[in-house]
Amino acid sequence: MYLFSNMLGVFVFDSQFSIVDEMLFKEADEYQNREEFIKKISSRHKNLEEPDEKSIKKILLHFNNPKYFNDFCSKNLKLTKLDVKNSVNRDNLIIQSIKSIGEIDKAINLLVKRLREWYDLYNPEFSRATESHESFVEEILNNEKSELLKKINVDKADSIGAELGQEDIEPIKSLAHQTYDLYQLRKTHLNYISALMDGYCPNIKAVCDVMVAASLIAHAGSLKRLSILPSSTIQILGAEKALFRHMKTGAKPPRHGIIIGHSLIAKAPDRMHGKVARALADKISIAAKIDYFRGKFIGDRLRKELEEKFK
Amino acid sequence: MYLFSNMLGVFVFDSQFSIVDEMLFKEADEYQNREEFIKKISSRHKNLEEPDEKSIKKILLHFNNPKYFNDFCSKNLKLTKLDVKNSVNRDNLIIQSIKSIGEIDKAINLLVKRLREWYDLYNPEFSRATESHESFVEEILNNEKSELLKKINVDKADSIGAELGQEDIEPIKSLAHQTYDLYQLRKTHLNYISALMDGYCPNIKAVCDVMVAASLIAHAGSLKRLSILPSSTIQILGAEKALFRHMKTGAKPPRHGIIIGHSLIAKAPDRMHGKVARALADKISIAAKIDYFRGKFIGDRLRKELEEKFK
Repeated sequence: MYLFSNMLGVFVFDSQFSIVDEMLFKEADEYQNREEFIKKISSRHKNLEEPDEKSIKKILLHFNNPKYFNDFCSKNLKLTKLDVKNSVNRDNLIIQSIKSIGEIDKAINLLVKRLREWYDLYNPEFSRATESHESFVEEILNNEKSELLKKINVDKADSIGAELGQEDIEPIKSLAHQTYDLYQLRKTHLNYISALMDGYCPNIKAVCDVMVAASLIAHAGSLKRLSILPSSTIQILGAEKALFRHMKTGAKPPRHGIIIGHSLIAKAPDRMHGKVARALADKISIAAKIDYFRGKFIGDRLRKELEEKFK
Repeated sequence: MYLFSNMLGVFVFDSQFSIVDEMLFKEADEYQNREEFIKKISSRHKNLEEPDEKSIKKILLHFNNPKYFNDFCSKNLKLTKLDVKNSVNRDNLIIQSIKSIGEIDKAINLLVKRLREWYDLYNPEFSRATESHESFVEEILNNEKSELLKKINVDKADSIGAELGQEDIEPIKSLAHQTYDLYQLRKTHLNYISALMDGYCPNIKAVCDVMVAASLIAHAGSLKRLSILPSSTIQILGAEKALFRHMKTGAKPPRHGIIIGHSLIAKAPDRMHGKVARALADKISIAAKIDYFRGKFIGDRLRKELEEKFK
């Protein structure tokens, strides 16, 4: 007596390879819980054995029957669809949103450059006095030209900006409005990633900032892959070009990749960058392993240790 | 007696080069209307003559006096500022807005690609069934997943898209919303340019569409420069790279530059492209000259002639 199971059900064959008992799966989840069915059917028969190579060929012949074929096909499709459906996880969501932030940044850059050039026709003094793009956009949306000039102590009569009619200012303001909205969207996305991370990788989030943490996961491909990377790889993740240049030409090896965006490295003096990057990558590697294996939250302690060390 | 005028005023010098009469300018616009002042002062004196090279040197020495210097400086600054201010014209506005449309297109492309990839996790069937980016964005903003699937005759149970919670759909919708707004901004800008052109270059606008007309002006730098270009240059404006490749390597010369965006060329079969482009550039060249010299509106006639010819 042979016990055999496939996508369609659990079967018992006798030594002549004809079916003596069967339990067919009706829903995809029955297939996923097939162990239960196997247990049940096993309890009804004695001397059940796994078919060897020779007998399995005979058993498979049985399923050549066209009456099984359509069933096979549709069940297979259903299961694959289910697998695809269930493969979407938080890694995907984090990766999509951090990449989206990247595109938004590019879009903002394009639009804000054009905005400044266009607005320069009207009020060049203010544009030049305001370095930050974001506050530039906000200010011109909320204030009239005369108020802006007053803020930077320029007499309106002295401005070399042209007098534009309301109908010519309107399209400039619309562009500014759009750019402002993109800045807001960027913030919303960042909050969303932050919320995702709270339940998924709180330790990495605590050690790095959200932007760096998400970029690391996106670059590694998933939290799982990040968790198995050695800390030396994490240190230069994102600096592959510099690494290969180093290996090929003997140029200096990169000291940091994505983690250069971390505030600890930004604050450190240049000669300390390598040291800080090494220690940071170390803690990230620990945090990633804890997060992947659902360990306790010690991210705040890891972060504190780092900050103490490089105070 | 010599008559001399500069930024400061109109002066009459006697033969010993001391001032016998003067009228100083108070405002910048008095300098711009200096002819009137010269007339007035001329009527008060006899035997006035233009200083020759030798005497003008003596006269200029007079203005070496430091009491004039500050006046010179501030007046000069004021006048230059006024010139800069008045140099902003409709060419600038058209160029800024058409370039802005270019940046908006790039931004839309970046965001819509990301949007599709992200949304694919949730509902890949609909994304693949909808080719146009713009209607894709509109549809997913206005309909729920189940409605969209119904539209393309896909059973919800068959979809391989993941079930996402509202909090995971929200950021995708925000991104879609932002992209939708950019499409709207593009339209507003196009209307604005169209309105600008009505009073500035109605003939070019009638012969080309707004996009092509504005791109031509932007590429030439101004309506004035476009109006003095020969039609053969207008034909390949924007295809400089292909032109120089032709001149350097003997590759085929370009048949059209910016004007390839014109509906007449798009509609024509490939072998006719060169012919249509030549005729079109011809009419654009005529239209540009009429517009620059403020001639009558014959744009509709020019366009009609073209359309008749290539019907």
